[in-house]
Amino acid sequence: MGETGTPNQKKIVEGPAGYLLEDVPHLTDYIPDLPTFPNPLQDNPAYSVVKQYFVNQDDTVPQKTVFEKNSPRGTHFRRAGPRQRVYFESEDVHACIVTCGGLCPGLNTVIREIVCGLSHMYGVNKVLGIEGGYKGFYARNTIPLTPKSVNDIHKRGGTVLGTSRGGHDTTKIVDSIEDRGINQVYIIGGDGTQKGAAAIFEEVRRRGLQVSVVGIPKTIDNDIMVIDKSFGFDTAVEEAQRAINAAHVEAESAENGIGVVKLMGRYSGFIAMNATLASRDVDCCLIPESPFYLEGNGGLLEYIEKRIKENGHIVIVVAEGAGQDLIAESMKEAEHDASGNKLLSDVGHWLSQKIKDHFTKKRNMVLNLKYIDPTYMIRAIPSIASDNVYCTLLAHGAIHGAMAGYTGFTVGLVNGRHAYIPFYRVAGSRNKVVITDRMWARLLSSTNQPSFLCSKVVEDAKTVNNTPSKVD
Amino acid sequence: MGETGTPNQKKIVEGPAGYLLEDVPHLTDYIPDLPTFPNPLQDNPAYSVVKQYFVNQDDTVPQKTVFEKNSPRGTHFRRAGPRQRVYFESEDVHACIVTCGGLCPGLNTVIREIVCGLSHMYGVNKVLGIEGGYKGFYARNTIPLTPKSVNDIHKRGGTVLGTSRGGHDTTKIVDSIEDRGINQVYIIGGDGTQKGAAAIFEEVRRRGLQVSVVGIPKTIDNDIMVIDKSFGFDTAVEEAQRAINAAHVEAESAENGIGVVKLMGRYSGFIAMNATLASRDVDCCLIPESPFYLEGNGGLLEYIEKRIKENGHIVIVVAEGAGQDLIAESMKEAEHDASGNKLLSDVGHWLSQKIKDHFTKKRNMVLNLKYIDPTYMIRAIPSIASDNVYCTLLAHGAIHGAMAGYTGFTVGLVNGRHAYIPFYRVAGSRNKVVITDRMWARLLSSTNQPSFLCSKVVEDAKTVNNTPSKVD
Amino acid sequence: MGETGTPNQKKIVEGPAGYLLEDVPHLTDYIPDLPTFPNPLQDNPAYSVVKQYFVNQDDTVPQKTVFEKNSPRGTHFRRAGPRQRVYFESEDVHACIVTCGGLCPGLNTVIREIVCGLSHMYGVNKVLGIEGGYKGFYARNTIPLTPKSVNDIHKRGGTVLGTSRGGHDTTKIVDSIEDRGINQVYIIGGDGTQKGAAAIFEEVRRRGLQVSVVGIPKTIDNDIMVIDKSFGFDTAVEEAQRAINAAHVEAESAENGIGVVKLMGRYSGFIAMNATLASRDVDCCLIPESPFYLEGNGGLLEYIEKRIKENGHIVIVVAEGAGQDLIAESMKEAEHDASGNKLLSDVGHWLSQKIKDHFTKKRNMVLNLKYIDPTYMIRAIPSIASDNVYCTLLAHGAIHGAMAGYTGFTVGLVNGRHAYIPFYRVAGSRNKVVITDRMWARLLSSTNQPSFLCSKVVEDAKTVNNTPSKVD
Amino acid sequence: MGETGTPNQKKIVEGPAGYLLEDVPHLTDYIPDLPTFPNPLQDNPAYSVVKQYFVNQDDTVPQKTVFEKNSPRGTHFRRAGPRQRVYFESEDVHACIVTCGGLCPGLNTVIREIVCGLSHMYGVNKVLGIEGGYKGFYARNTIPLTPKSVNDIHKRGGTVLGTSRGGHDTTKIVDSIEDRGINQVYIIGGDGTQKGAAAIFEEVRRRGLQVSVVGIPKTIDNDIMVIDKSFGFDTAVEEAQRAINAAHVEAESAENGIGVVKLMGRYSGFIAMNATLASRDVDCCLIPESPFYLEGNGGLLEYIEKRIKENGHIVIVVAEGAGQDLIAESMKEAEHDASGNKLLSDVGHWLSQKIKDHFTKKRNMVLNLKYIDPTYMIRAIPSIASDNVYCTLLAHGAIHGAMAGYTGFTVGLVNGRHAYIPFYRVAGSRNKVVITDRMWARLLSSTNQPSFLCSKVVEDAKTVNNTPSKVD
Repeated sequence: MGETGTPNQKKIVEGPAGYLLEDVPHLTDYIPDLPTFPNPLQDNPAYSVVKQYFVNQDDTVPQKTVFEKNSPRGTHFRRAGPRQRVYFESEDVHACIVTCGGLCPGLNTVIREIVCGLSHMYGVNKVLGIEGGYKGFYARNTIPLTPKSVNDIHKRGGTVLGTSRGGHDTTKIVDSIEDRGINQVYIIGGDGTQKGAAAIFEEVRRRGLQVSVVGIPKTIDNDIMVIDKSFGFDTAVEEAQRAINAAHVEAESAENGIGVVKLMGRYSGFIAMNATLASRDVDCCLIPESPFYLEGNGGLLEYIEKRIKENGHIVIVVAEGAGQDLIAESMKEAEHDASGNKLLSDVGHWLSQKIKDHFTKKRNMVLNLKYIDPTYMIRAIPSIASDNVYCTLLAHGAIHGAMAGYTGFTVGLVNGRHAYIPFYRVAGSRNKVVITDRMWARLLSSTNQPSFLCSKVVEDAKTVNNTPSKVD
Repeated sequence: MGETGTPNQKKIVEGPAGYLLEDVPHLTDYIPDLPTFPNPLQDNPAYSVVKQYFVNQDDTVPQKTVFEKNSPRGTHFRRAGPRQRVYFESEDVHACIVTCGGLCPGLNTVIREIVCGLSHMYGVNKVLGIEGGYKGFYARNTIPLTPKSVNDIHKRGGTVLGTSRGGHDTTKIVDSIEDRGINQVYIIGGDGTQKGAAAIFEEVRRRGLQVSVVGIPKTIDNDIMVIDKSFGFDTAVEEAQRAINAAHVEAESAENGIGVVKLMGRYSGFIAMNATLASRDVDCCLIPESPFYLEGNGGLLEYIEKRIKENGHIVIVVAEGAGQDLIAESMKEAEHDASGNKLLSDVGHWLSQKIKDHFTKKRNMVLNLKYIDPTYMIRAIPSIASDNVYCTLLAHGAIHGAMAGYTGFTVGLVNGRHAYIPFYRVAGSRNKVVITDRMWARLLSSTNQPSFLCSKVVEDAKTVNNTPSKVD
Repeated sequence: MGETGTPNQKKIVEGPAGYLLEDVPHLTDYIPDLPTFPNPLQDNPAYSVVKQYFVNQDDTVPQKTVFEKNSPRGTHFRRAGPRQRVYFESEDVHACIVTCGGLCPGLNTVIREIVCGLSHMYGVNKVLGIEGGYKGFYARNTIPLTPKSVNDIHKRGGTVLGTSRGGHDTTKIVDSIEDRGINQVYIIGGDGTQKGAAAIFEEVRRRGLQVSVVGIPKTIDNDIMVIDKSFGFDTAVEEAQRAINAAHVEAESAENGIGVVKLMGRYSGFIAMNATLASRDVDCCLIPESPFYLEGNGGLLEYIEKRIKENGHIVIVVAEGAGQDLIAESMKEAEHDASGNKLLSDVGHWLSQKIKDHFTKKRNMVLNLKYIDPTYMIRAIPSIASDNVYCTLLAHGAIHGAMAGYTGFTVGLVNGRHAYIPFYRVAGSRNKVVITDRMWARLLSSTNQPSFLCSKVVEDAKTVNNTPSKVD
Repeated sequence: MGETGTPNQKKIVEGPAGYLLEDVPHLTDYIPDLPTFPNPLQDNPAYSVVKQYFVNQDDTVPQKTVFEKNSPRGTHFRRAGPRQRVYFESEDVHACIVTCGGLCPGLNTVIREIVCGLSHMYGVNKVLGIEGGYKGFYARNTIPLTPKSVNDIHKRGGTVLGTSRGGHDTTKIVDSIEDRGINQVYIIGGDGTQKGAAAIFEEVRRRGLQVSVVGIPKTIDNDIMVIDKSFGFDTAVEEAQRAINAAHVEAESAENGIGVVKLMGRYSGFIAMNATLASRDVDCCLIPESPFYLEGNGGLLEYIEKRIKENGHIVIVVAEGAGQDLIAESMKEAEHDASGNKLLSDVGHWLSQKIKDHFTKKRNMVLNLKYIDPTYMIRAIPSIASDNVYCTLLAHGAIHGAMAGYTGFTVGLVNGRHAYIPFYRVAGSRNKVVITDRMWARLLSSTNQPSFLCSKVVEDAKTVNNTPSKVD
């Protein structure tokens, strides 16, 4: 496997009318004569009433859901869910769970549901928690997880396992997996983490181990490819309302009041966009995908001045990754943090300073700028109910896949159906707000902010071949 | 059109590989030579950046999203969104909005976004609010709605237009529409209301009026066919957590504590099911779809006693429509309220009394039962952020459809894409929790409650041909 | 000691200018030559900085705080706080905690702070939890409580010890205290519970035991005499806003909408009054202290009709103990629950029915009445921050008093100072809303509701010699 | 009057047993033969039931409430409340309201209640809002305020009048008061604002105008002398819990996690102290009153390292004014903002940097420090119910005082009773956390943090003659 998470070989199946299946690896791809066992769910009283509990072996889910009468059917993914036969006996399963990267509402719910799901559905009772992210595999002790010990954790924010960035050492991790006799690895984390999971899977395959490696994609920014939405996103947008409301009150109460709210979003502005659309108190939303400029005609400062003259105040939401090019111009350097993400300079502070400087020095106006950064208050809250249910379904999808012998995949909701997606489709690239799509136009229409685009850029943007936004 | 909302003729289009389109009516179906106009959106600066703003005329959305390689493509609906050409000139549009039935979080957001969307996207400024439900068309004055007057209403619960049940008089309503010169009618309401909308559409068509009749489906119970989710549902499930938490605390603190929470759901138990799954503090969830019995082996009372002996307390969530057969046995009569819904006896009070009677009289046990009915506290709250965004998209879908000359349809999210659905597909029947499906099995597994089903019922249930649950 | 909690002898000290001290019992009242020990706090590093940590032995707190130049100084209570010398050696202390009666926000905080306070301030490590109220002394096992085991309980509602009503058997309880070697008894509960505490103290004194018996008064209704406010009250009023808001939204959205909210308050209407004053959306507040009538001139029904005609809706808050005389007229019977409180019929249901009957039957008006009973949702929440801090101070006051050898007292805030109050001053009578005082007038002025009083009643009311309300 | 707000003459009345009354000015002090009128309240139906509605002319409230038998009675203040006779006829009253300084929860409630109280209690209907703080008197238009226009404002944060710092020009303001015919001036603001109010009063007196000048003290920091508590304080402490919880979750989930929360408190640490006591998740609380040091034995860095080694994480709360001496050492300069407050460097950023530098550079430890500054999110929220009721009582006290001819005073709660306090007692000095008092010892005991005091400092501290803390 290379840096990019591209696997050695893709598993592509073709069908009629342009049907394509991008399938995920299976233990039997490299361990031929694995025995199978009946799925213990069929003896579970709770499931006795279920008609077609087991997912049809060949069920798939389409990636695109907008068709014309004659359009090709396109790419599909394997549907998630329990299979008639499993590749592990319950008493032989030895699972582990690790959480990596930044906090995200719902982490504890996913942990809880993997533990409870394995136990209640499959009778699996050996589940280890790896502490403090990837490095916990080799540098820390593990902790046993039981349905009792995780019973209430979904009511708390954060992750009971602890987390860290970086620390990925494929060899040491797979050594640890092998040495401890672990055969199901559940890895919850973002883009970098999923790349790491892909590397672990490749090494596991190279060694020929009967170990299922499953990713549960986590990113509060909602920037994962293919899937409808990442868990914790709705919670984050909900909690962001609180900061926007506060900024609005502060701005309205002051003379020439400016409220600036920085929201999460290093590479994509989904939180900023949805929080702006939900709130309707925002006058300007700046995201990484939509370049802007400060000075001159059609620039941000001109717009701010116009709004303040009209309304007496303005509320600005800025995603943390917005305007990086502008910041970089002065900074002239780029650093990297442990996980390999660019250490972005704080756009909120930078922007606030630029606005203050402009109006007080150049325009000689009294300004009252209030800057709010709710990032850590948003990340740390427990997830809302809808995210809680979503986390449950993700965890169950992961469990069913691992028990059924699939490996090297992540679970995700694709057009309302849970599916198994090869690592290489979710790692290495990011879902972004498509600024030539209707959702962003809706935002522009709602805020009345300028598009900050000269006509050339607009034309360029229109020619890029982007996937249309999801919920539209 | 008959009582049931079935239209005179369905518009069905067939395509290759089993493709079917169930199309919605269009003004040109009965008014032949209507002029068209360029969509004013193309001159809207906010939309100047948009590449393919206009939905392809032939875009459709599949109803089903689980396919095998060779499965037929099945039913599709017309994709929602703006069209290149519209059938109304902006200055000629005279829209009205009416809200009917019970409260639901998000009503004010939908109202706001129809008003703002018509104004900001299409330059339409004549929008009337019909007060107090259907009867407001003929028995009350109307109120003008402007972007300014509705600016903050999404932060409040309820509906600024007021609402009522019943009061539908097709002739009087269409007379009023005709007399006032209204040509776009936006009707927000539940099943009964959508039937009424269908009747209005039929009468409008009969009279040959150039009036678009659009339904926005509203039901806090999430029991509308075809669509992924109704607005306000996530908010309701979120707010229900509060009541369940309280019931859990009360039950835990008392000797033999029993907490009973009644949640909304006359005919379907989605709120109860999702609230139970999200909370994980519930020991038993009773819904209309899953019959239960009190006495004897495998009955509810036996389960309660068992749980109390094990844990000292029990939390029960009951949907308002559960156990109606049991209640009816004693009541021996049925009443109807103004909207035609059965006036259901309060299952919460009934169940609480039955439990108290059994344990204090028959079992001579001291019980501490606390009954919580949070219904009106849930219905009346403002919607959470994700519902707010969803309401915006529904409103925009409705507007684009009406402007494009479609009529006699409801808007809805179908597998993550907004679509136009003929009235007859959403009115007259209800989406229900499929108790032979995995979602309900998941709940049984999470609560450990008995299925209350003897083996015969199970077999019967398995043979019914139900649609699988959505999010699975 | 008799039923009423009156002690054998009061300890009254007189001073100049009309000064009176109503003192609390002390172990040395009946055990003469008790040894004393230096207070271990003076060796506590956290307290090393404190100047005058120890309360002056003779500090007292006045009951009244409105004086004229020449008015007598009046009754005082002993100031709470640590004393220079204590009557227990830390290693000899064996404390127990019991919670009785209904839930109240803050119970867990008080428990936590007694345990942590005894440990951190006095080095006391033997603290038992009595489970399930008074009967737990003799019918249940005890559980050890440590700072670690109670560390997070203040974030949860309810009581970790469990609670019950009644179950008081003085002899069995004091036997258990004696047999287990307990020498500090902390009793958290309401009026009935404090009477029970007084009986325990009298029996302990009769037997000549060196046991401090301390009451921490608990009533969500805020109806305890002498003290400024009971813990949990502010939390309850805060949470009640949620129900009132919902009732307001429901009433406003419906035709002739009536929102009825029942709040706690069996004998006194403090929660209803303060919730009404805080909300300002309430049109009528009914409390036990202010009789009202339904029919005729100046009656409630007339007022409701007037308001609905003017505003289209009305919001009514009713305390659970209001209108009991009216209800009793039809009921003609009274029952008692285990703790001796009258089992009050539900005034909310009764009132709702009366209103519906009147308007639909007699006045032939369509009404939309929504009844909300948030009682158990309010009682079960964790306490807000200000109540949390208050609970800490109450617990510390109790501990300091017990260590200093005081007994037979309750702790309470008196005019902003913590004090020790003899049992007989807080048990057996209740603080009530004084309807001839300004606070109630303020409410009448805010709601514009009628006073429901004929002139004779007014005159009578004015001649009763009531204590003026606290916060005024 | 001088800078400090000290009046030309104090009004002191002496009485027996050491009784002292510090009275407030009255219009008749400088306008001899003012006519009086009966208080219109006595004809108000809502008040018809009230027995002794009018406060006894000579009622006073003691400043201290801890007495020994023979202690002198000490200073008293005039009790707030309505008087039998007033010095304004209702139709002649022309009131104005101004809000100055930073936002504080409850501002809108105070505004609302002055408007509604004047109207409902006294029939006063001419109330002007001065926009944007003091400068609004001469640089902006006024807005009329009516009970209808302010009806819902208490549900929103901020101030509908707008606010600003500085802008005080006594002559221009009193000119404006005189020119507009205003005769009651309600000034809501903090220390600087109250000093300004004193200057306005002195100028009004100098000109011999019949204008009552009333201050309502506002400071979220709760640092106003004499009074029990400032409005908005409980709300601020409550909302601060949210930030502390988040910091705790972040710290617990990370390796060597440090959560730093900055809370309001330029000169006094009440919010930090109470938020810490309420939360119990804080390991260290730094306030302006308690100096600390970073390096060496007993320093903060040593303590942090110790805690992290023991628990793996630490949560630090720091008041914005803490450690200013340490910051100044490097800064070597001081700036002033418009209101004259020192522009304090952000202690949160400074402290975070110092901690990071120390551990990463000197100790070579990996740290995960998360810094949360919830200031603007706290200031901007609406007030909780208890603060709402408190604001009502403050507003009513202010109105009654102005109507009764008192002037040059602020209203405030003194030992649970509302009183009138001369400006010079509340302006010019600040209430502070007394670190040699029990409340701070309680905090030290709860957090286990070091006192950061060498023995000499302790001794010094003990000899300062401080007022004991209020709630104790």
